[in-house]
Amino acid sequence: MPKLILVRHGQSQWNLENRFTGWWDVDLSDKGVEEARAGGRAIRSAGLYPTRCFTSVLTRAIRTLHLALHEMDMLWLPVEKDWHLNERHYGGLTGLNKQEMMDKVGEQQVKIWRRSFDIPPPPLEADSEFQLAGDPRYANVHVPMTESLKDTIERVLPYWERAIAPALRSGETVMISAHGNSLRALIKHLSGISDEDIVGLEIPTGKPILYELTDDLTEISRDYLA
Amino acid sequence: MPKLILVRHGQSQWNLENRFTGWWDVDLSDKGVEEARAGGRAIRSAGLYPTRCFTSVLTRAIRTLHLALHEMDMLWLPVEKDWHLNERHYGGLTGLNKQEMMDKVGEQQVKIWRRSFDIPPPPLEADSEFQLAGDPRYANVHVPMTESLKDTIERVLPYWERAIAPALRSGETVMISAHGNSLRALIKHLSGISDEDIVGLEIPTGKPILYELTDDLTEISRDYLA
Repeated sequence: MPKLILVRHGQSQWNLENRFTGWWDVDLSDKGVEEARAGGRAIRSAGLYPTRCFTSVLTRAIRTLHLALHEMDMLWLPVEKDWHLNERHYGGLTGLNKQEMMDKVGEQQVKIWRRSFDIPPPPLEADSEFQLAGDPRYANVHVPMTESLKDTIERVLPYWERAIAPALRSGETVMISAHGNSLRALIKHLSGISDEDIVGLEIPTGKPILYELTDDLTEISRDYLA
Repeated sequence: MPKLILVRHGQSQWNLENRFTGWWDVDLSDKGVEEARAGGRAIRSAGLYPTRCFTSVLTRAIRTLHLALHEMDMLWLPVEKDWHLNERHYGGLTGLNKQEMMDKVGEQQVKIWRRSFDIPPPPLEADSEFQLAGDPRYANVHVPMTESLKDTIERVLPYWERAIAPALRSGETVMISAHGNSLRALIKHLSGISDEDIVGLEIPTGKPILYELTDDLTEISRDYLA
């Protein structure tokens, strides 16, 4: 029975400041570091032995994986980092806190974005300080200027099919450290959650989720560890 | 001009206690953590941008790499972990401190091992607490019971040729975090050091070495950073 462990990265500095982060590379807060370590101990206590790991190219998810693996004495596991597992790109909202966004676009518009599956925020301004042009990690990547949750799902799932699903089918136990919305993409797919419901699904930081899967990789069970 | 950065892992708990470590998976000391971070800052200050990393499957080398990459804001780089870059296997000396070894085999024998290129220590006892049978990271590996420096070189160099040299030839800047003796293997090869001289070459912990190489991967220059 294939097993999959999902971990949302620990609290970041901008989670703490309530700012939209997306693809901007913000590090973990001290609390986030502790959450990541606790996540690793929970996986270890559950007697789980991942054999292969995947994460995004964002520091907060990579460090969460490293800190968890260190607690598990499993830093030697192979790790594949790929931008397809990055957080949703928040476009012009990047860097704003919730209050600044309210002031900028109004409460009504915020509610629409919050609740919508397929409406992206406005694109990142060309002269934004949060542009990623020149970042070598995206040298061969067409970086989006904004994404809806639907857009995020549409780039996560092909990567899932190409890179992760084959590992599970070949008998590997897979651990993924990623982000609120890239994990929503996977959970929607694996658990068959509707477009409406997935928008409201909250995933706690640093708290591992264990999926037990059928051979064709649909949910048998989904539980939080610890 | 291909560039290669070598880093010997920071001080480990057993370096501190003066004990032979080899393949036993001992973590960094607090000082080792700081050395690793300082190594990362030195690489960053030198304006170097590795594109690909290699390390062993031992925690002290992997963490050294991670801590350095974190200082460099380059945790997103691809990292390949392979046992061929492990430290020399110290056989029956594993776990002993230098005094215990003197007491066990005598000063004369210790000098012979210290100075010899091709004489391995006695093999690890079958009932040793330092046996690695059952360690999943070596599931498909024929773990040695002891190694001379020559033996270590003979497993490091084929991996160099197979995995690392092609990356350098294709234009990558490579960073390797490894161990005293696996790095001796590489330095002997790249700088054409004799069997006699390589035994005495001391490599400081956490202090990056920058190689500039010819297109056929021999030394143009070799310098410590910082």
